[in-house]
Amino acid sequence: MNEFEFLDGLRRQTDSRRHSTRLLTGIGDDASVISQAGNRDLIVTTDLLVEGVDFYPDATPARLLGHKGLAVSLSDIAAMGARPCWTFLSIGMPPERWEDQFKDQFFAGYLALADHFGVTLSGGDVSETKTGIVIDSIVLGEVNSGAAIKRSGARPGHQILVTGTLGGAAAGLKLIENGARVSQSPPSASASADDESIQALLLRQLRPQPRVGWGMVLGQQELASAMIDLSDGLSSDLKHLCDESNVGALIDASAIPLDDDVKRLCGRRALDPLALALHGGEDFELLFTVAPENVSRLPKKVDGVAICNIGEITAAKRAIRIRERNREWDLQPGGFQHFDR
Amino acid sequence: MNEFEFLDGLRRQTDSRRHSTRLLTGIGDDASVISQAGNRDLIVTTDLLVEGVDFYPDATPARLLGHKGLAVSLSDIAAMGARPCWTFLSIGMPPERWEDQFKDQFFAGYLALADHFGVTLSGGDVSETKTGIVIDSIVLGEVNSGAAIKRSGARPGHQILVTGTLGGAAAGLKLIENGARVSQSPPSASASADDESIQALLLRQLRPQPRVGWGMVLGQQELASAMIDLSDGLSSDLKHLCDESNVGALIDASAIPLDDDVKRLCGRRALDPLALALHGGEDFELLFTVAPENVSRLPKKVDGVAICNIGEITAAKRAIRIRERNREWDLQPGGFQHFDR
Repeated sequence: MNEFEFLDGLRRQTDSRRHSTRLLTGIGDDASVISQAGNRDLIVTTDLLVEGVDFYPDATPARLLGHKGLAVSLSDIAAMGARPCWTFLSIGMPPERWEDQFKDQFFAGYLALADHFGVTLSGGDVSETKTGIVIDSIVLGEVNSGAAIKRSGARPGHQILVTGTLGGAAAGLKLIENGARVSQSPPSASASADDESIQALLLRQLRPQPRVGWGMVLGQQELASAMIDLSDGLSSDLKHLCDESNVGALIDASAIPLDDDVKRLCGRRALDPLALALHGGEDFELLFTVAPENVSRLPKKVDGVAICNIGEITAAKRAIRIRERNREWDLQPGGFQHFDR
Repeated sequence: MNEFEFLDGLRRQTDSRRHSTRLLTGIGDDASVISQAGNRDLIVTTDLLVEGVDFYPDATPARLLGHKGLAVSLSDIAAMGARPCWTFLSIGMPPERWEDQFKDQFFAGYLALADHFGVTLSGGDVSETKTGIVIDSIVLGEVNSGAAIKRSGARPGHQILVTGTLGGAAAGLKLIENGARVSQSPPSASASADDESIQALLLRQLRPQPRVGWGMVLGQQELASAMIDLSDGLSSDLKHLCDESNVGALIDASAIPLDDDVKRLCGRRALDPLALALHGGEDFELLFTVAPENVSRLPKKVDGVAICNIGEITAAKRAIRIRERNREWDLQPGGFQHFDR
């Protein structure tokens, strides 16, 4: 039984025992939606990060870990088209971490990102652990009543778009696994273009930038019909979206926005930019669908981040196809099987 | 630096960077309070339980662990005088736990308690861990605008009351540490009164009953001026309440409701009922204060659970005194220094 089978079972159980008619969306989307008075819906997400599974402590400076702990949850709120407002943090650490600089650096990173998006740390819990660090980051956001963008709204003919570029975070993870480490000092004048690309990719992995601005624009202007954030990888997350919408998709390989640093390093370091872009996880870009009549209403950029049109939703239920030049084949979900939803 | 010093520091930091004027109460109470439209306040609490620190897996059947994981958070919501509505659960487990019956039993216990109080499991996250189990239980509740009962509202002359009986959960923990285990079969006809008391105390520790009904009555009828749940122990939690209210207290030792099973076993098993009631943690009863004119309005029982008047708030700032017959002395916070707030 893998994570998805388990969550499917749990979702069936919980669907049959809803005590609250105000729970509009529960297990099975990026975040849950609860209707509130005053034409607002409350959006809630939680993300558990475990040492040795979701991050390597020796490769992750404490400040960046604090940043990422919050970023992954902000990305879920963005994927619902909502505005993040409040965060709660449960953190468990071995006793020695309470004595060193770790916790101060961790909270500095967490709070700096919260401040950047006007999110207030509002509570949480702390505990000792016997071994590693564990972080559960909770974010509450808000959206206009009924305006939350679910995974289930994509319809045949809708265009498929993605923010930013893909493959960088997975390349960063490969570099970490090969021993590369983020530099704590500013780049020297003698740093090569390769060195700079390596550092940039490490930060794509360790300091993801949640697309909070794009999420809010798409939600407030009701531009997107369905949305998900790219945590598992394009091939897996597009499948989640198509499964929930009961549709298929056709992707154009040449339209996928590849990360420039991955392209620069690809030859020498056995990185395949397209494979990383299709199957690499944790880019935390937004993947969304837009009805044809709304495509021209999309802004070109939000917060300096562009979007690309990479394909179209089809009526072929749950069949994800990809076209590269004259070939077309089934795109199998091949992303890292992330152990969260 | 202990937990309380750390949280004090974090509280000062977060107080100075509130981006939301709607956060009415943050770090430093049983739960956080966020104002909503429609004359409602949202109450949020998170509780992290870590294997080997907060529970012993060999002494804790999975179903009871599921129950307790939710119960501790429901108790925090009750301590705010609120109604629990939605729960979110982040859980990390080693791979082998996903294969055995553990997770099904765990969720059966969690969902049974949620159903009992009409609370809906609304989302969460799952992750693998390298070693032990970690559970972060989040509960959202609601209360009428401004009616949340904080720790800070106690005034000199207010009476101090407590629900249920005290000391049972700490006695249960001692029994577990001495090797006692909860029986999986119904009591046999030959079970002695001692055996029955031991089983009852183990369940006080492993299957705490959050005082959800009392919390809602006190909140809806605005009967209590301040409230806290007894997670750290009476001496510690009364100090938290008095510190937040900037008052003192005088407790009458003879009025403290001792657990009957503790009294029954005390002679033979080196259990001191008063010490356990004063300093033992995890009874998850409610400790609250009531203005003199409201005492007669209190119901005698809610859900079959009685209350006792154990003392009075004094003007002696932060001085907690206890009287036993003709003696009176300072009550030092001596509870287990629980590593959560």
